[in-house]
Amino acid sequence: MQLISEQMAGFQSKSSWIRKMFESGIEMKKIYGADKVYDFSLGSPDLPPPPSVIDALRSMADDVDKPAGLGYMPNAGFPGTREALAKWAAVEQQTPEITADDLLVTVGAAGGLNCLFRTILMPGDEVVCPAPYFVEYGFYCGNYGGVLKPVKSETDTFKLDIAGIKAAFTEKTRCLIINSPNNPSGVIYTEAELQELGKAVDEASEKFGHPIYLVADEPYRFLSFNGQPVPSVFKFCKYSIVISSFSKNLGLAGERVGFIAVNPAIENRASLVSGLIMANRILGYVNAPILGQKLIQACLANPQAAIDLQNKQLEVYRKRRDLMASILDEAGIKYRMPDGTFYFFPKAPDGMSDVDFVNKLQEHRILAVPGSGFGYPGYFRLALCCDETVIENSRESWIAAGK
Amino acid sequence: MQLISEQMAGFQSKSSWIRKMFESGIEMKKIYGADKVYDFSLGSPDLPPPPSVIDALRSMADDVDKPAGLGYMPNAGFPGTREALAKWAAVEQQTPEITADDLLVTVGAAGGLNCLFRTILMPGDEVVCPAPYFVEYGFYCGNYGGVLKPVKSETDTFKLDIAGIKAAFTEKTRCLIINSPNNPSGVIYTEAELQELGKAVDEASEKFGHPIYLVADEPYRFLSFNGQPVPSVFKFCKYSIVISSFSKNLGLAGERVGFIAVNPAIENRASLVSGLIMANRILGYVNAPILGQKLIQACLANPQAAIDLQNKQLEVYRKRRDLMASILDEAGIKYRMPDGTFYFFPKAPDGMSDVDFVNKLQEHRILAVPGSGFGYPGYFRLALCCDETVIENSRESWIAAGK
Repeated sequence: MQLISEQMAGFQSKSSWIRKMFESGIEMKKIYGADKVYDFSLGSPDLPPPPSVIDALRSMADDVDKPAGLGYMPNAGFPGTREALAKWAAVEQQTPEITADDLLVTVGAAGGLNCLFRTILMPGDEVVCPAPYFVEYGFYCGNYGGVLKPVKSETDTFKLDIAGIKAAFTEKTRCLIINSPNNPSGVIYTEAELQELGKAVDEASEKFGHPIYLVADEPYRFLSFNGQPVPSVFKFCKYSIVISSFSKNLGLAGERVGFIAVNPAIENRASLVSGLIMANRILGYVNAPILGQKLIQACLANPQAAIDLQNKQLEVYRKRRDLMASILDEAGIKYRMPDGTFYFFPKAPDGMSDVDFVNKLQEHRILAVPGSGFGYPGYFRLALCCDETVIENSRESWIAAGK
Repeated sequence: MQLISEQMAGFQSKSSWIRKMFESGIEMKKIYGADKVYDFSLGSPDLPPPPSVIDALRSMADDVDKPAGLGYMPNAGFPGTREALAKWAAVEQQTPEITADDLLVTVGAAGGLNCLFRTILMPGDEVVCPAPYFVEYGFYCGNYGGVLKPVKSETDTFKLDIAGIKAAFTEKTRCLIINSPNNPSGVIYTEAELQELGKAVDEASEKFGHPIYLVADEPYRFLSFNGQPVPSVFKFCKYSIVISSFSKNLGLAGERVGFIAVNPAIENRASLVSGLIMANRILGYVNAPILGQKLIQACLANPQAAIDLQNKQLEVYRKRRDLMASILDEAGIKYRMPDGTFYFFPKAPDGMSDVDFVNKLQEHRILAVPGSGFGYPGYFRLALCCDETVIENSRESWIAAGK
């Protein structure tokens, strides 16, 4: 008997790309030794947690050794954590109006996105999204019967196709989700692009008589290599929402802490925030993990230290990026230099599909993910979540594969 | 413009009971002082985390101070945590066949239930459940288009109406969910009841040609006051699943750690487990919080210590139960003595609805939740998540309200 629903069975077979790479990776590491396999498949941050997190953790035991010390708190998170996040987001989003009431603490950005889709989508509703895009978006919408409608960004430059996005809006559209700096392309959308996009979204909200939200998924905000600003969507679009996490900048991926902040320009936004809080409850998150909330609050108590820390990490990733660029150049592989994130999204060589080239790379013990998995065939993604030595050691394999 | 979906707007208005009590509580505590309001509304454990949790937390900082020390792990949880859980569940469920492959670590039991419903439900599918029931079940099913079908248990005794449950099974039924010891009734289902129930469920699976799972939601398993066994469903039903958490027994509610274990008697259960793991990923949990996983693993390393700890808590709750019983007796309020949990589910006085009586209690500064919120009007729930002195101090109010 079939043990799971047909939809989940279908999801599982669709989801097989990254899984396939993951499993191949394990097999190959067994055969060749872990140091002979160059695994650029998973975007799983490899840096240690910063000293501020470790210090906060050290003082945690005394802090929670009291009645209900690790018990429930309000579904939106600790008031103190929300306050700290509001201060942080006000600076980051250049929106001093943000208060604790405009945000909630979530189980990472992934939990935040699920809360949002649960709150605004009805079955059949649509979510527009530029491609290439983070593969999980489709599943997150699908959880609630929503449908992802990707709009291909321009070839090679990955610039937004704003006319195409406008054309994709229908009666059923509930939001447009962007991710800048972008996983997988590494592109940062400019102020001019966001301005045009914000205008298009607000016009569509007017036209269809219901809000179409511009949702900015921003876990890579701090990874901008050339001082290029990552403009806030709040400035350009009334119905806008920011979702982020501390998985990358504070090395907290496994503890699952993020937030949703809604644009303080939205009238009567309390009903939106309370919908999101209810979604946080009924999706079974109940609340973001208590220890993670306390860690975040402690780290954000000194915002400058947190920013310095981000910049230190940026330098680590910049070196990795520059090294990988030099190797790809040597191997004759074409790519757009990433403005941000820890990804590259190079082009498969002429006459070869992304899947074929990824298979070829695998023969040379390099693990990558085909662009098909990001709604953008013809390219492939590399995640630089590994030591520089791994990147350097992969050089000969790249040159051999590029031939 | 309406900022959230119609369904969420509807959910929010349905959800208003406990929220109303919660908000009244805050208001009343402001007016009368926190010590003059007897708040039995929320089932939020008030005991401190046990020393083993605090000790584990103390050694955590050194443990995670390394590359990716707080990073992602497999979506199913750390292999070591799954191993520890398998050993624990094997004893608890008297099923030595359980291995780490038969379970995954989840974001509490609430996260586990959502994973399960995501994995097995398609829109329109049905979940049968004895009433009274935990009010969130309806939302958890509804998240994925599922429909909860409550079957009223026997008046006063809350014994399962097994004929009624059988009659509720249709083509669309995907599972029957039970909660024993039961929130809110405090009833523990007997071996004979579970045997009959398991037979009914397995027969229905045969009849309809797809598995109907018997799901045991067991966060209160350790709270059995008279040494009455809490039999495992694994013994009585092939297609059975246990979901639990460490929110109550280890005081970890806020950190969100639980598990799903599937019956090792299910053939080809790997497809079920991998569906559940994928649900854990795509619902945005990604993985149960890393610090919580490490705490659980440390605590379960010494199972006897964990059991002793549970028994110590049981004694705390037993005293509260006995005290509350004596007060209800004095006030002339009828109730079935709870076999387990930290709840009472007494009857509203003759000629009064549960809502009216809860309102009357509120006039006497006692906060309770009407049974209507648990699909069982005519009764009301008390949660004993407060110090004995609060219970003792409420005596006069009870006597006055009971008149």
